[in-house]
Amino acid sequence: MTGPEPSDPTLVPARHADRTSSDRAALDDLLDSCLVAHVGLVAEHGPVVIPTAYARDGDQLLLHGSTGSRWMRALADGDAACVSVTQLRALVVARSAFESSMHYASAVLFGRCTVLTDAAKLAALDVITDHLIPGRTAQVRRPTPRELAATLVLALPIEQWSFKTSDGWPQDGPDDVAGPAWAGVLPLVTSWGTPRPAPDLAPGIAVPAQLAALAQLAVLATPPAEGPRR
Amino acid sequence: MTGPEPSDPTLVPARHADRTSSDRAALDDLLDSCLVAHVGLVAEHGPVVIPTAYARDGDQLLLHGSTGSRWMRALADGDAACVSVTQLRALVVARSAFESSMHYASAVLFGRCTVLTDAAKLAALDVITDHLIPGRTAQVRRPTPRELAATLVLALPIEQWSFKTSDGWPQDGPDDVAGPAWAGVLPLVTSWGTPRPAPDLAPGIAVPAQLAALAQLAVLATPPAEGPRR
Repeated sequence: MTGPEPSDPTLVPARHADRTSSDRAALDDLLDSCLVAHVGLVAEHGPVVIPTAYARDGDQLLLHGSTGSRWMRALADGDAACVSVTQLRALVVARSAFESSMHYASAVLFGRCTVLTDAAKLAALDVITDHLIPGRTAQVRRPTPRELAATLVLALPIEQWSFKTSDGWPQDGPDDVAGPAWAGVLPLVTSWGTPRPAPDLAPGIAVPAQLAALAQLAVLATPPAEGPRR
Repeated sequence: MTGPEPSDPTLVPARHADRTSSDRAALDDLLDSCLVAHVGLVAEHGPVVIPTAYARDGDQLLLHGSTGSRWMRALADGDAACVSVTQLRALVVARSAFESSMHYASAVLFGRCTVLTDAAKLAALDVITDHLIPGRTAQVRRPTPRELAATLVLALPIEQWSFKTSDGWPQDGPDDVAGPAWAGVLPLVTSWGTPRPAPDLAPGIAVPAQLAALAQLAVLATPPAEGPRR
């Protein structure tokens, strides 16, 4: 089933339906700005959730890992997957614990993966590399046959998904607003630190420009919404 | 089965066994320094992974949510759960894409939740609140009966789990070390920004000291290891 809403309503989070967005562009923005996904699958004895690097390529989410990875092999065999990507953006500090919450963006994708091979596999690895470190594929040698043989690359179609964001100010009732407690938003800022050269780095090899630039930016920072949540 | 290793070997990640630690203290450190967990369960049509706030209380992981949340109700009914907590700490920028990786800490817990009620429920909510915002319970009013009735609180015993970390420098082979590519580690720094007061905050209510202090610290920052990975 193609479309921005999961076809099966049991897959759609039931709560906070008012926070649900069908905006595919917002989904892509989130997927393109995060680095780690949590992949859920059903093992023999129950659910398993594994963190992993990923990248988006158009209408596919790309995963990669060792051919020796059991969860990768299970997904390669067609097991159902659920991939969750979450960005925590701020704490909402309300005047009560009950109204306190978080600013976040959350994508949950459902589906089954296909195994990429040959040129598609090579291209996907480049997309993953450049998602993690922009422009990096142009700075490193090509993968060797041995490396490719040791790597499994999977593609999950971006077809069944939900996307939610939460932002805005605390929504305290009048009694709490009249009370003594502070209220507001505490932003979470994620940034890259200064690149640290490896101890065996040969003299004269400069930090790549894009890494130096990343270290100057709070690349994942998201300012809190200025307006009310309602 | 009590102990630091999952009793069922099929639950234990098979790869990178050299990164597996049985150090319960390290597990606790990770759980105490992160705010969001990814909870996996098996829905009618397959795996589901939901992000949620959590807190550790001794040998329990505490979850809370609305009584209207389907995934919370499923866990309350005893469905098997897998809870994953991940901290991305740095990118390992190797001289090849294949050797590039991440510094991370990852906890994966397995089990079934119990529903907390009465005094245990109240205490758990306080632990969650104070985990998210240290000292906050002392600054806000107590939960009302209506709020408590609307909230489901679950406890997952910390009994079956795995814990992994990865750190160290790129492990490039001699040919790559002799090549032109830069190599090193790009640290990820997560910090709190300046607290923003709510628009309806009454005059004269100062930012709580612990929030002001958090904003001065890169509280989640983790320096990369200085030594080699091996």
